[in-house]
Amino acid sequence: MKNPVILTGDRATGPLHLGHYAGTLKSRVALQGTHEQYLLIADMQALTDHADRTGLVRDAVLEIALDYLAVGVDPDRSVICRQSGLPALSELSMLYLNLITVSRLERIPTIREEIASRGFGRAVPAGFLAYPVAQAADITGFRAGLVPVGADQAPLIEVTNEVVRRVNALAGEPVLPEARALIPETGRLPAPDGRGKMSKSAGTALPLSAGPDQISAFVRSMFTDPGHLRVEDPGRVEGNVVFAYLDAFDPDREEVSRLKDRYRAGGLGDGVIKRRLDQLLQELIRPIRERRALFAGDPAQVLGIVKGGTERAAERTSETRRRVFRAIGVGALTVSA
Amino acid sequence: MKNPVILTGDRATGPLHLGHYAGTLKSRVALQGTHEQYLLIADMQALTDHADRTGLVRDAVLEIALDYLAVGVDPDRSVICRQSGLPALSELSMLYLNLITVSRLERIPTIREEIASRGFGRAVPAGFLAYPVAQAADITGFRAGLVPVGADQAPLIEVTNEVVRRVNALAGEPVLPEARALIPETGRLPAPDGRGKMSKSAGTALPLSAGPDQISAFVRSMFTDPGHLRVEDPGRVEGNVVFAYLDAFDPDREEVSRLKDRYRAGGLGDGVIKRRLDQLLQELIRPIRERRALFAGDPAQVLGIVKGGTERAAERTSETRRRVFRAIGVGALTVSA
Repeated sequence: MKNPVILTGDRATGPLHLGHYAGTLKSRVALQGTHEQYLLIADMQALTDHADRTGLVRDAVLEIALDYLAVGVDPDRSVICRQSGLPALSELSMLYLNLITVSRLERIPTIREEIASRGFGRAVPAGFLAYPVAQAADITGFRAGLVPVGADQAPLIEVTNEVVRRVNALAGEPVLPEARALIPETGRLPAPDGRGKMSKSAGTALPLSAGPDQISAFVRSMFTDPGHLRVEDPGRVEGNVVFAYLDAFDPDREEVSRLKDRYRAGGLGDGVIKRRLDQLLQELIRPIRERRALFAGDPAQVLGIVKGGTERAAERTSETRRRVFRAIGVGALTVSA
Repeated sequence: MKNPVILTGDRATGPLHLGHYAGTLKSRVALQGTHEQYLLIADMQALTDHADRTGLVRDAVLEIALDYLAVGVDPDRSVICRQSGLPALSELSMLYLNLITVSRLERIPTIREEIASRGFGRAVPAGFLAYPVAQAADITGFRAGLVPVGADQAPLIEVTNEVVRRVNALAGEPVLPEARALIPETGRLPAPDGRGKMSKSAGTALPLSAGPDQISAFVRSMFTDPGHLRVEDPGRVEGNVVFAYLDAFDPDREEVSRLKDRYRAGGLGDGVIKRRLDQLLQELIRPIRERRALFAGDPAQVLGIVKGGTERAAERTSETRRRVFRAIGVGALTVSA
C-alpha cells in the first residue's frame, strides 16, 4: 500500500529555530525518502495575526525556505511551496467556511487559548477565527493523509475531518481523504530558563543560523536544578533543561541514561553535562549554518526552488479544487437533466 | 470624466422575478449604455446559506443568465460572469478576512437580522458571517465605484470601504477605489397581499417567465383598500398594492395621478385599476417571456455567454488581486533590500 501524502509547513512569521528542528524539521528530512511530502510556507495564514506586518511575512518566506534547505530538505523529493501562490486553497477555504459554524470554531480549545494569549479580546480578526478552516483547505487541498502537528494542534485535524465528511456527504462519494495527525516523539523544547517552551516571540529561541558563541551562551544560560548547588549534591533530572535537550539531541541514549543516574546520585557537575550538550549542538548546527549561508548567498536560486515547488503544488491543489467543486456540483457550467 | 465601473448581480438561489426587474434589472439595461458593468451570478455566496442545496445553486446560474438576457442585458456591453469561476475573489476574501474583526461583522444590522430571520441561532455558518467580506472582495475585485443595492444593503458598502481604506493604508497608495451605493428609485415591490415585500421564499413572487393567466391571477389577488367596499366609497391610495405597482410600472405618471385623485374621491372601482395594471404587466412581461423562452431553447449558447463573460471578469479580478498583493507586499517572490 502506498504511503499517505504528507502536508506540513510553517507560518511565515520569521526564520525557524532549534525547536522546529527537533519537533519537525528532522523528521521531514527522514520522511522525504518514503513519502510524497509538501512543505507549505504559510504566508496567507501568517496574515491572520500579522496583517499589519506584511514586510516581515514576505521576508520570512525566503528565510524559511533557507531553513528547509539548510537542514537537508531535498527540493526534488519534498515540494517547497508558498501558500499565497495557491489560489485553489482560498477557493476551498471559502467553500468550507459554509460547512462549519461560528460556534464550532469558537469552541476549539487552541483557538480560545490563542485568542486570549494574543490579547485580541473582542477584536479577533475574522481570518484568525477562520484559520482552522483555511488549514482544512490546506490539508485537503493536497489530499494529505498524514499531518505532522504538535499535540495541541490535534483538535484542528478533527475540524479538517469534519469538513471532509461534510464534503463527501454532499458529494455522495469519497472525494477527499480523512487526515491523521502525526504527533512528534520529541515534545516542544523548553526555554533555557525552563519557563515555557522555546519561542521566538519570547526571545528564547536559538536560530538555525546561530554561530558558535551564540550556541555556547545559549547552553550556559540553561537552568538545571536550583537545589544542585555543589557537585556532590544529588540533582534532579526532571525539569532540568540540559537533560531535556540531551534527551532531544543526544544519539547515545545509554550514556544519557548513565549521566542521569550519576546526576541523581550526586557527583556530576552541571559543567559536564553543559559541555556535552554544547558540543552536540555545535556539531548539529554547524553544517546547517554553513549550508544556510551558502544558499543565502544565492537567493535567486532559493526563490526559484520555491517558485518551481509552488507550480507543482498548484497543479495538485487545483486538481483537488476541480474534483471537489465538480463532485458537489458547483461551478460546473452544465445543464442539469 | 469616465463613469465609474458598476458591479451588480444576484445570489444564485433561483430565477429572478418582477421585483428584481423593478428594483434593478431595468436600470442595468439602461446603465449598460453609459457604464462598464459587471453582472455577477453569485453562486459561491449562495452557498453561505444553501450549502446543502448545491443542485439548486447550480441550476440557478443558468436561470439567472436567462433572466438577464430576457430583460435585454446585452452581453457585449454588460459582462455576465459566474463567481465560482473567479478564484481571485476567494483570494481577496481570505486576505480581507484578516482586516475585519468578528465583532465588526456581528454588529452589521443586516447580518444580525438575517441570522435571526434564517433561524440560524448559534449555528451560523462561518461563511454567512463572513459574507460582507466576500462582498467586499467582489466589489473591489472589479474595482467598482458604483454598486446598485437596496437601501438595507448600504451598510455593507461601508464594510467594503473600511476594507478599501485598510488595504490602501497597508499599501501606502490608493490601490483600490472606494465604492458608492446606488439606491434604486423604486423600492421593493410589496407582496400581493400587502404584507411584506415580493419574495420567492414567501411564495409571493411573479417570475419573469410568467404566462398571461399567471399574471392576471397575480393582479387579481392584490389587496387594495379593505375599506373600499363600494365603487362610490372614497378609497385609500397609500398601502394600496395596485397603486404601488402602477407607481412602479406605469409610464403615464399624470394618468396615475388622476386615477389616484378619483380613487380617493370615490367613484373609481378596483376593477378599473386592476385591468390597467394587468394590461401593463402583460405588455411588460410578454417580450421578456418570449426572449427567455428563445434563449432557454439554446442553453449551450447561454452557458457560452456566461463562460465568455467569466473569462473577461477573471482577467479584471486577477489584475486587481495582483495589484493588491503586490502593493501590500505579499506573494511577491523578491528579496527585500
